[in-house]
Amino acid sequence: MSASFPLPVTTPENKTRQPDLEALIQQWGEKILALIDAAETPSLFSKKGFYGTLMEWAMADEHFKTQLFRFVDVLPTLSSSSEISRHLKEYLGDDQVKLSPALRLGLKAATGASWLFGAGVKAQVTGMARQFMLGNDEKEIVGTLRKLNEQGSAFTVDILGEAVVSEAEADQFAQRYLDLMDLLARQIGRWPHPCKSNESPRGQLSPLNLSVKISALYSQIQPADPDTAIDRISARLRPILRRASELGAFINFDMESYALKDLTLRLFKTIFDEPEFTLSPACGLAMQAYLKDCEADLNDMISWARTRRRRITVRLVKGAYWDYETVIAQQQHWPVPVFAQKAETDANFEKLSLALLENEETVHGAFGTHNVRSIAHVLAQAERLRIDQRNFEFQMLYGMADPIKSAVLDLGYRLREYCPVGELLPGMAYLVRRLLENTSNEGFLANKFAKGASRDELLKPPIAEIMGRSPSLSTIQYQSSTTFQTSPFHNEPHTDFTIASERQRMAAAIQEQRKKLGQRRPLIINNKPVPTPDWLPSLNPANQSEVIGYAAQATVAEAEAALAAARAAQPDWGRRLPADRAAQLEKMASLMRRDKAALCALEILEAGKNWAEADADVAEAIDFCKFYAAVMRDLGCPQRTQTIPGESNLLHWWPRGAGIIIAPWNFPLAILTGMTTAAVVAGNSVIMKPSDQTPMIGARLMDLFLEAGFPPGVVNLLTGPGGKIGAHLVAHPQIDFIAFTGSKEVGLRIWESAGHTAPGQVNLKKVVCEMGGKNCIIVDNDADLDEAVVGAISSGFSYQGQKCSALSRLVVLSDAYEKFMDRLIAAAASMRVGPAEVPGNMIGPVISRHAQQRILALIESGKQEAKLAWQGTVPNDPNACYVPPTLFTDVPAQSRLFREEIFGPVLAVTRSRDFDEALQLANDSEFALTGGCYSRSPINIERAKAEMVCGNLYINRSITGAMVERQPFGGFKMSGGGTKAGGREYIQNFLVPRVVTENCLRRGFAPADEP
Amino acid sequence: MSASFPLPVTTPENKTRQPDLEALIQQWGEKILALIDAAETPSLFSKKGFYGTLMEWAMADEHFKTQLFRFVDVLPTLSSSSEISRHLKEYLGDDQVKLSPALRLGLKAATGASWLFGAGVKAQVTGMARQFMLGNDEKEIVGTLRKLNEQGSAFTVDILGEAVVSEAEADQFAQRYLDLMDLLARQIGRWPHPCKSNESPRGQLSPLNLSVKISALYSQIQPADPDTAIDRISARLRPILRRASELGAFINFDMESYALKDLTLRLFKTIFDEPEFTLSPACGLAMQAYLKDCEADLNDMISWARTRRRRITVRLVKGAYWDYETVIAQQQHWPVPVFAQKAETDANFEKLSLALLENEETVHGAFGTHNVRSIAHVLAQAERLRIDQRNFEFQMLYGMADPIKSAVLDLGYRLREYCPVGELLPGMAYLVRRLLENTSNEGFLANKFAKGASRDELLKPPIAEIMGRSPSLSTIQYQSSTTFQTSPFHNEPHTDFTIASERQRMAAAIQEQRKKLGQRRPLIINNKPVPTPDWLPSLNPANQSEVIGYAAQATVAEAEAALAAARAAQPDWGRRLPADRAAQLEKMASLMRRDKAALCALEILEAGKNWAEADADVAEAIDFCKFYAAVMRDLGCPQRTQTIPGESNLLHWWPRGAGIIIAPWNFPLAILTGMTTAAVVAGNSVIMKPSDQTPMIGARLMDLFLEAGFPPGVVNLLTGPGGKIGAHLVAHPQIDFIAFTGSKEVGLRIWESAGHTAPGQVNLKKVVCEMGGKNCIIVDNDADLDEAVVGAISSGFSYQGQKCSALSRLVVLSDAYEKFMDRLIAAAASMRVGPAEVPGNMIGPVISRHAQQRILALIESGKQEAKLAWQGTVPNDPNACYVPPTLFTDVPAQSRLFREEIFGPVLAVTRSRDFDEALQLANDSEFALTGGCYSRSPINIERAKAEMVCGNLYINRSITGAMVERQPFGGFKMSGGGTKAGGREYIQNFLVPRVVTENCLRRGFAPADEP
Repeated sequence: MSASFPLPVTTPENKTRQPDLEALIQQWGEKILALIDAAETPSLFSKKGFYGTLMEWAMADEHFKTQLFRFVDVLPTLSSSSEISRHLKEYLGDDQVKLSPALRLGLKAATGASWLFGAGVKAQVTGMARQFMLGNDEKEIVGTLRKLNEQGSAFTVDILGEAVVSEAEADQFAQRYLDLMDLLARQIGRWPHPCKSNESPRGQLSPLNLSVKISALYSQIQPADPDTAIDRISARLRPILRRASELGAFINFDMESYALKDLTLRLFKTIFDEPEFTLSPACGLAMQAYLKDCEADLNDMISWARTRRRRITVRLVKGAYWDYETVIAQQQHWPVPVFAQKAETDANFEKLSLALLENEETVHGAFGTHNVRSIAHVLAQAERLRIDQRNFEFQMLYGMADPIKSAVLDLGYRLREYCPVGELLPGMAYLVRRLLENTSNEGFLANKFAKGASRDELLKPPIAEIMGRSPSLSTIQYQSSTTFQTSPFHNEPHTDFTIASERQRMAAAIQEQRKKLGQRRPLIINNKPVPTPDWLPSLNPANQSEVIGYAAQATVAEAEAALAAARAAQPDWGRRLPADRAAQLEKMASLMRRDKAALCALEILEAGKNWAEADADVAEAIDFCKFYAAVMRDLGCPQRTQTIPGESNLLHWWPRGAGIIIAPWNFPLAILTGMTTAAVVAGNSVIMKPSDQTPMIGARLMDLFLEAGFPPGVVNLLTGPGGKIGAHLVAHPQIDFIAFTGSKEVGLRIWESAGHTAPGQVNLKKVVCEMGGKNCIIVDNDADLDEAVVGAISSGFSYQGQKCSALSRLVVLSDAYEKFMDRLIAAAASMRVGPAEVPGNMIGPVISRHAQQRILALIESGKQEAKLAWQGTVPNDPNACYVPPTLFTDVPAQSRLFREEIFGPVLAVTRSRDFDEALQLANDSEFALTGGCYSRSPINIERAKAEMVCGNLYINRSITGAMVERQPFGGFKMSGGGTKAGGREYIQNFLVPRVVTENCLRRGFAPADEP
Repeated sequence: MSASFPLPVTTPENKTRQPDLEALIQQWGEKILALIDAAETPSLFSKKGFYGTLMEWAMADEHFKTQLFRFVDVLPTLSSSSEISRHLKEYLGDDQVKLSPALRLGLKAATGASWLFGAGVKAQVTGMARQFMLGNDEKEIVGTLRKLNEQGSAFTVDILGEAVVSEAEADQFAQRYLDLMDLLARQIGRWPHPCKSNESPRGQLSPLNLSVKISALYSQIQPADPDTAIDRISARLRPILRRASELGAFINFDMESYALKDLTLRLFKTIFDEPEFTLSPACGLAMQAYLKDCEADLNDMISWARTRRRRITVRLVKGAYWDYETVIAQQQHWPVPVFAQKAETDANFEKLSLALLENEETVHGAFGTHNVRSIAHVLAQAERLRIDQRNFEFQMLYGMADPIKSAVLDLGYRLREYCPVGELLPGMAYLVRRLLENTSNEGFLANKFAKGASRDELLKPPIAEIMGRSPSLSTIQYQSSTTFQTSPFHNEPHTDFTIASERQRMAAAIQEQRKKLGQRRPLIINNKPVPTPDWLPSLNPANQSEVIGYAAQATVAEAEAALAAARAAQPDWGRRLPADRAAQLEKMASLMRRDKAALCALEILEAGKNWAEADADVAEAIDFCKFYAAVMRDLGCPQRTQTIPGESNLLHWWPRGAGIIIAPWNFPLAILTGMTTAAVVAGNSVIMKPSDQTPMIGARLMDLFLEAGFPPGVVNLLTGPGGKIGAHLVAHPQIDFIAFTGSKEVGLRIWESAGHTAPGQVNLKKVVCEMGGKNCIIVDNDADLDEAVVGAISSGFSYQGQKCSALSRLVVLSDAYEKFMDRLIAAAASMRVGPAEVPGNMIGPVISRHAQQRILALIESGKQEAKLAWQGTVPNDPNACYVPPTLFTDVPAQSRLFREEIFGPVLAVTRSRDFDEALQLANDSEFALTGGCYSRSPINIERAKAEMVCGNLYINRSITGAMVERQPFGGFKMSGGGTKAGGREYIQNFLVPRVVTENCLRRGFAPADEP
């Protein structure tokens, strides 16, 4: 043993280890490395070879790596060689890749690189993919597996496939598992020798080992409704488990993204508790050491198995979605579920390896790693614990780390290869993951085979690495914008309904809310309740016999009173320090956060929003409070316009006065809150007029303004007939501004009315006017359809399409059309429809009977204009305002379906021959609100960015769900005046700028410190 | 000699000196310092004394110093003890002065500090002033001078006075010089002994030595017209010189601000060349060593004297307005005329001292300094040159540096004290300057007497100091704003007409322009000339028989053609890179700079602007081009809204489309340029409609757009009847925006018309609407009337009041009313009225016959409403459109004079009993554009800042002349929509925001470097 080994660090964990453990690990490590060094370098890392050269470049240049892998990703969808060379050029042409000069030289010099710009590229990449996948040909699959068998490697098969976006696809996937088992069972029976790696001291293990992806068995998994997911997945799993029992096969549950983790664990425990499956088939599941939860989950799983005296297999892996998990959690402002440092994961892997070995009577350890240090640690621990060396196994991926596999086999240990089968196209995701792994700066393989890391480095205990670093990076900091001043604003996280307690809280809140229905909510003027003779009932869209509450109905007299209150209150309020007003908004935010579940529950019942949509709306309302407060704090500090001596020039902002807020029902809390808080934090007073459809939410918001301590008259609540009191106030000479979100018709009327300046009117009226949309997504030929289908469904149908940002027109390019439409219709048909309060229902009722009738009529007339391609079914409930989700195809550009805002679950699809025509169709609208494009052509993406006429454009994602600050929201043309709710400039709509210049030079003396 | 003396540095200058010069200087210095140390500390620096304590605090705390000196400055205007204690509290109360804790303790402990909050403060400050001034009592004056005479000090008397703002005041001042000479001549004749300091080897010098301030002898000095100033000053000087000749008195010209330097030098040379004064009186002038020009000026003056064989006195001083000169030059972006380092000035003083001594046969050197090093240098040089020690003199200020004076006299040299006489109130400026000098960190006196600097430091050669510093600070850098990103923008400097070549250039340009009058200027559509059947002549307001040119008169047909051109051109133009469009604006700026004089000349003739006003307008046009280019370059870079991984969110801006620019005639180039360039740099196309009054300037601007290479259709020129073609285009469905500056009536009509959205219209119309003002200045009781009178005259009458920013209402507080009005009327009566092309005419004609008649009618009807306090006279020229400048007093708040925008040279004055009422009156207007307040009450200043309802507020300065970026300009209420021309946000009016969101996560892989 060399003296240069790092000394084991003393930590709670390794105190319990015997002192010679680290030495033992190092011995094992050296042994394996010696075996590896004696073998050949894997072809992927051979510098002479073609793939090796590519990988070397990728490791040398991050940008080239991105471009290369993205090209690899899109390649299988490209149908012609011209398409391939176009994409090649777009991704890897000289203009696209800013390679370092050295790399560029290398690229030119490399003999193997001619492929890159030749025609054989698809074959080459297919060849690369074949290194990691078994393909789709039965003979080939069987041949490869048999060869592995003969070499002593066991296997587990995994089926590659596109994301399952519909129930039809889930059915197909389930069938593929059955077929594959049958095929393999037939073939394995014919093989002469059992595989050595299936020979354990406890007897022969099943040679037929199948890895199952849970997400492939149900297309409508929703965080809020795991119960249904368990039901549906179980239904598709049972036949698979039965067949496995019959065939003596082993079933492993793969572990996918963190969002599915709890579901997968729960599914495993429930289904293998079903009497039918308590004894067989043999089963196991994968667990990911990079998850901070993993230790607790593993302990739970071990005790579950121990209680049932059922030996299960746990495939301990490190986890393959680190980037994804990190990114998604940061985007959501959720705790990052994975360790930040690779070394932390490695250390956790060692810790959990020990747990597996220590519980080997209950769990069969399957150690999935290519890392020699991790393997050596297992071997050392097993030796220390005197565990039979065939009582556990190693698992490695097919096509990866061959010298390590050989070493493990040579040392007499059991090895299982993870073998993906299936088509190339869905396999690309898998390929890219493997390439990433092979080129990762932190990965063992690249360090060993490409970078020639020293033995010391390769075998270094991970704990030493962790201790050597500066303060833990585990908590990855949210990075705020660099362009603006550092913003103190963070978006309110959406509720993570995968957490059971969150689901319980929401269910309880709905129950609670239901007890309070039917109240009469008066107007609020000067912070005092003002009842009215007339009251308008607000009805549950899912049950028109359920009255949510009764809203007071103001007349012109009350409108005048509210305006008088607002006018009287404004001067004092406007003179308060901006920071004080901001603090009141922050108070609002905290009250809303406190009442989040109750507010959601009310939205669910009054507006028919499903759980996630209601939760997002409340989160957005909180965001508005926090964000506008933060912006006002900034704007409240006068800005120096220029720095010159002897004179101070400061720009600051004054409120406009008193205004009216006219809000829609579709984001009943968020939009009303956003418009109101922007106006009042700016120092204005307002009259809030919520929609007639959601007055109870408006009243609830008013409660919060009162509770937050806004002075009398600053915010007044005026429910009632918009056509009467709204129009009266808009035209009123004492109104200084109007903030409106709603239909084009009403918006234009307000815009025109406000243009008139009455005699004696103090200010020109400012109108913030957000109107409709007729939003379009382009699906390019090379789009990732897994994502495009999901994005189109969610953009078009979430909240029944009742969003101004909702997808209304789909323009699909010819080559992608058939496949996309098949999948889209299947996906649409898989959506669950029902009352919003039932978690997991994606589609609920539309807002009212009136809306229902209007949309149904539009659908009827649409049938004359276009082809009704598909229409969903809805519950047969006469009390509910359902509209069946509907897809029209062959929609001509001149039709109403193509031109009019529908505001319902209706999608108009048009086929386009090329991208030019697609852009032209997308832009052929009087609206310009949102838009989207799914494409993997860098040039088409850039064209969409430059040419799609809309206020909010989304590339390769859904087009709804704009977040405050992140996606300032609003459009132009007939969609609005070019204001951006949730943007830094928004609040300026409610302010006027004012410059104060002071001559600081007195008697020729200008102090240096003058403000 | 101590070994620690710094060695003389070898520089070109001191190479010519004998090697022992520095040693000689040090010897002299030590000798003087020894004498000083033997004497008493001057009372101002005595730490025991009251003043010494104050000065010590002032030196310890910059903020206290500012507050103290400002209080001292305002004190004499305070009439009651309650006013005094209010101001004391506002300036020096606990809340105002954030003293360091130590200083605060000291302040409390100091026994002498009780005065600070007692009633005796005025007496105390008067006492302090009396240390430096001789007061106004004849007996006292004579007594003090006689005492000096007996002590061996000669004197020169200077008369303290308010700034001379009218010809009446100039007459009075001239008379005071005569009276003072008479008084002194009578008295001096009675004194027993001649003063020793007037005994020179060349004979007895005049004991009656008078220092004359040139600025006191003429109230209307204008840079563009030094000739008139020379005439008028000469006329008032001649009687003084004659009397001086008769009395054998000596006349010295004091040197004031740099702006008057050339005038003073020229006056000296011309008047003493007049035959009557070639021999007598004896004369001299002051020259300022801190000026970079000083050496050249001194050489010129020496050769002037040598040629005439006339021995003159040159009082070499360092200069007392360093702060002022530095600040003003930086504000104007002119070269700073003074040396940045004190040591440079000291070195220059030494250099010029030598020049005086070397030319002693021609110039009598009078060395005005309190610096022992500077004195020692003179003595050493004189010794080296073997100049009789009584052949030159030292001058020091009365009440300053007494021990140094004694030392000089003790050593047998001649000394003259500079003795200011006059009232306390105007003396405060002088007192504050003295206090500043005494407390200056760089001043010799503070270093010697307060800080106890070492002998080495005090006598250090200035050249050593300069060489020891890092790169010259002479070029003081313009500091751009710290709040915004560092702006590359600098305001275009106004032309400095004190420079003769600039005056010549302008005069020549006017001549040149006159040759080109009478042209027909067609419309420009698609960059092509379009003549029309009708042509409207544009007439010179000062000469209605002079046709400046003929403007084409568009009809609706041409308006449609222009719009079609604009629409066709916009898409390509809008797609150009913002930086390219910005570069085109920068080209415009450079073309305008090239043509500056020609553009000014055209404005002078067509719009009746005087030289300075025309020059400022062109400079502002250049600023708009440069500033909007700079802003667009910024806005052209998409801004990241939030930084989150896996998704890029960029906010950028799109043009609105095609618009119309409707501009007024009063800033005929700047406003038209500003609105047009903001729109086009944003990527829009426009139709430019200049005013009917100034179409030739519009056509000239169009020439520049063509020359700058704007593509066809981007900018189109449409002259013609606004009521017809303007209204047609404003209402046109294909117009996306309107930028208007003009009257309220037209503005409101446009606002209303644009509010209507026609069927098929693409966008909601955006209107940028800048309308009128009825702007008010409040003159507080404690205002500095020198500044308030000048500010009111310039704000109210420059360009005949034809500015939307112009002062229209003056609200004067009771205590200040009589004095202010007397001075104001006298100042108004002193304004020169005549054609704008004649430099020096402050008041020219109003824009047109129509405007003249309208304003005259308003004046007539005003006589029924208020008291006509004063009306000026105008040249009797029926061809010109003059309106006599007019002042109304007792103007009631309900009168038309008080409420209506007049847009002419008419001021409505209202007296107010207190500041509350003043604010209420100021805010009693339908407009809210500019406003101002002259006050020296910190609390009233803060109230004005917080409460005066206007878009641009100016404290203690004129309320017109807003500069681009520095004072973004625009108002609210009926003054406009709250937009700010020349502000960073302005350009956003011509843009719509757009957010592009791209999901960068593909296959779970988000590259780190995604845009």
